[in-house]
Amino acid sequence: MAISRVSLGRYHNAISWVNLFCQITFRGINILISEKVYMDYNATTPLEPEVISAVTDALRFAWGNPSSTYLPGLKAKDIINQSRDSIARMVGGKAEDIIITSGGTEANNMVVHSAVEHFWKSCVAEKGARERGHLLNGSRVLPHIITSNVEHDSVKIPVENLLKTGRADVTFLPVSMVTGRVEAEDVVSAMRPTTCLVSVMLANNETGVIMPVREICERVRAVKRPAFSPRVLLHTDAAQAFGKIHVDAQDLGVDYITIVGHKFYAPRIGALFVNGPGTSTPIHPLLYGGGQERSFRPGTENTPMIAGLGKAAELVTTNLAAYESHLLDIRLYLEQRLLAVFGEEKVRFNSHFPGSDTLPNTCNVSILGQGLQGKLLRFFLICVLARPSHVLLNCGVPYHVAANALRISVGRQTSRQDVDVVVADLRDAVEHLEQMN
Amino acid sequence: MAISRVSLGRYHNAISWVNLFCQITFRGINILISEKVYMDYNATTPLEPEVISAVTDALRFAWGNPSSTYLPGLKAKDIINQSRDSIARMVGGKAEDIIITSGGTEANNMVVHSAVEHFWKSCVAEKGARERGHLLNGSRVLPHIITSNVEHDSVKIPVENLLKTGRADVTFLPVSMVTGRVEAEDVVSAMRPTTCLVSVMLANNETGVIMPVREICERVRAVKRPAFSPRVLLHTDAAQAFGKIHVDAQDLGVDYITIVGHKFYAPRIGALFVNGPGTSTPIHPLLYGGGQERSFRPGTENTPMIAGLGKAAELVTTNLAAYESHLLDIRLYLEQRLLAVFGEEKVRFNSHFPGSDTLPNTCNVSILGQGLQGKLLRFFLICVLARPSHVLLNCGVPYHVAANALRISVGRQTSRQDVDVVVADLRDAVEHLEQMN
Repeated sequence: MAISRVSLGRYHNAISWVNLFCQITFRGINILISEKVYMDYNATTPLEPEVISAVTDALRFAWGNPSSTYLPGLKAKDIINQSRDSIARMVGGKAEDIIITSGGTEANNMVVHSAVEHFWKSCVAEKGARERGHLLNGSRVLPHIITSNVEHDSVKIPVENLLKTGRADVTFLPVSMVTGRVEAEDVVSAMRPTTCLVSVMLANNETGVIMPVREICERVRAVKRPAFSPRVLLHTDAAQAFGKIHVDAQDLGVDYITIVGHKFYAPRIGALFVNGPGTSTPIHPLLYGGGQERSFRPGTENTPMIAGLGKAAELVTTNLAAYESHLLDIRLYLEQRLLAVFGEEKVRFNSHFPGSDTLPNTCNVSILGQGLQGKLLRFFLICVLARPSHVLLNCGVPYHVAANALRISVGRQTSRQDVDVVVADLRDAVEHLEQMN
Repeated sequence: MAISRVSLGRYHNAISWVNLFCQITFRGINILISEKVYMDYNATTPLEPEVISAVTDALRFAWGNPSSTYLPGLKAKDIINQSRDSIARMVGGKAEDIIITSGGTEANNMVVHSAVEHFWKSCVAEKGARERGHLLNGSRVLPHIITSNVEHDSVKIPVENLLKTGRADVTFLPVSMVTGRVEAEDVVSAMRPTTCLVSVMLANNETGVIMPVREICERVRAVKRPAFSPRVLLHTDAAQAFGKIHVDAQDLGVDYITIVGHKFYAPRIGALFVNGPGTSTPIHPLLYGGGQERSFRPGTENTPMIAGLGKAAELVTTNLAAYESHLLDIRLYLEQRLLAVFGEEKVRFNSHFPGSDTLPNTCNVSILGQGLQGKLLRFFLICVLARPSHVLLNCGVPYHVAANALRISVGRQTSRQDVDVVVADLRDAVEHLEQMN
């Protein structure tokens, strides 16, 4: 049974063959592959043609070792410097604030690691030599980290690991079930004299909710702390934000921002913005080696990928307003079509939270109805989960609704026609499931 | 003053513009850039055309998130699996033994980190709960690591850092001044009950000397250890070996091998061979996150770079014999021409050690003579160093010889004509310097 129609490929080959569906066998029925519509841009994005050119040019012509002082190396170094400038511009920082990493996972792990090191160095600096885990006034002192209960695994798992191994205390702040946000008030309430890091994502990947990072930073910085307390470092993982909403380090007031290339049409590489690395803001390397990235992140630089990241950042800086308005237009059209086709009673938007801003491109929707629960997911393989998303449950979405949730995230090239195809396919799938009941 | 002639570009654009020299101002004289001859293949290599194709195809057509279960993701996953197979074949391991990393620096750091974790886990397992740094029989117990004094910075600096911060004891074994090798006998003598890691590179990047890794492994494994001692993990950084000499994990008998793409015509990505990761051989992640690489190394996979690494590995497996014989032919011709042009008295090969095997492509040479010391380097910017290489000094090369050393490493496309150009340029530079005296 084919449940999806084919839409025309546009753009270039890189995305003309993408699909929303896939062949699956469900209750003995083969469901055919439908190609051509991709709506999982929050998972990853195709590369922009200019980005592909930047990468391939560097692969061919800038393969020299950037640490070398002869031409091929200097050329590579030059490309890296230009990219660093572009990334800095995108994030509202200076070139020296950008540390290139292998991706968001590494950037997030670096922040967590740096905060723990910072904690112990602060202790050593202010209270004399003290070994890790030693007692202070009879109780074991550990660095305390505040984060949310809807973070990406690359923040959640490192801090969980510190907690499990007794190397840090962690508060996983629940997001408000009304707003879907981490509230600044709750962050401040959770603060302890040992708090050394607050890490709250800028926008959630599943609900699209934009967190009040600026307010959190202001409130945290305003808290009077005991003299012996370490400075609280402020981090936001902005993986989902670049190319969708304006991101400005100074405006947000954070110390660190995680940048993830493949979420904004760049290759699989990332960067960490650090507000004055090693001067205004502590940063401790995870890796040691040949001194690249001023020893904050050694290893021969991945020139082609850095070139691509720089080009993608440049595109974001130049075109953000256009991207944002297109994404919003398409997403609103998608929501409108869903309501028109299924009716208000059957549609529950899990990405709508009163008073909260959300990403322009993210629609998280459940189609309610007998026999649908937990099954639509298997048809719409854009978002296969073994169980309902913990993010949605943490945001207050009821279990039976979360069990049917589809995250539909649109992209720069998504058209209204694509939306029509997806909504029609969804209608067919719902009808099919209802008939089977 | 132009001191170098131009040779014809061959191959493809990626390397036709490379150069041995660069414009520098030396004692007020402008020295012009000479293009076209690159002989620093131990620093980095251009990408093979097939590798570039594999990378660019994946950039365009396999950009899906490999963790997704719909087609674009499955296609990416498939490419990654194929590449993993190819890398495993090159190193003589199984696909599940290959953990993709961002490069050699990360792979080496992972091994050092894993060895330390392994040490503490062994202690905990065999002697009950014990916290890190606790005392045993009145003395502080620390993991002990044995390595050489000619390792790459990505091994040297991480272990130095552990030493400085009191988290490990480290023995930096001097290489023999006769053979340029780490001798197995010395490794065994350095072993302590707390030794948990022996890390010796397979081939040195400056001298090209091949270390007796197989013998080291055999000898270390044969040592009777106290019951409470941790197993000694065996690692070799084979960055310089792939594509030049045969490398086989089983034959070497190591637990870990570091693989660095950009040293064998692949992109800037690496891998770590682990002999049965998490089963036969312990491996502890440096990063925590989304579960990729079986959680040994999470982060969305860099599909295009992995595709390139796989293709380059495939080329090595297929063509190693041809590569090796070509490299050897060219290097021997280079050495013969140097002797013919400068005479035996003026030429000192720092890469010749009696009884030691060396990489086929690496010539480390000093031209001796009045007024040359420390100056040739500035002309031949292939190997600029602020001071003589510590590797050469550690290998017993006298200071005044090391101060003049040039590492000339040839590649798959280096021709005898290229060698003639380089030797003639070197002769001109030497004559010029001697006249200035």
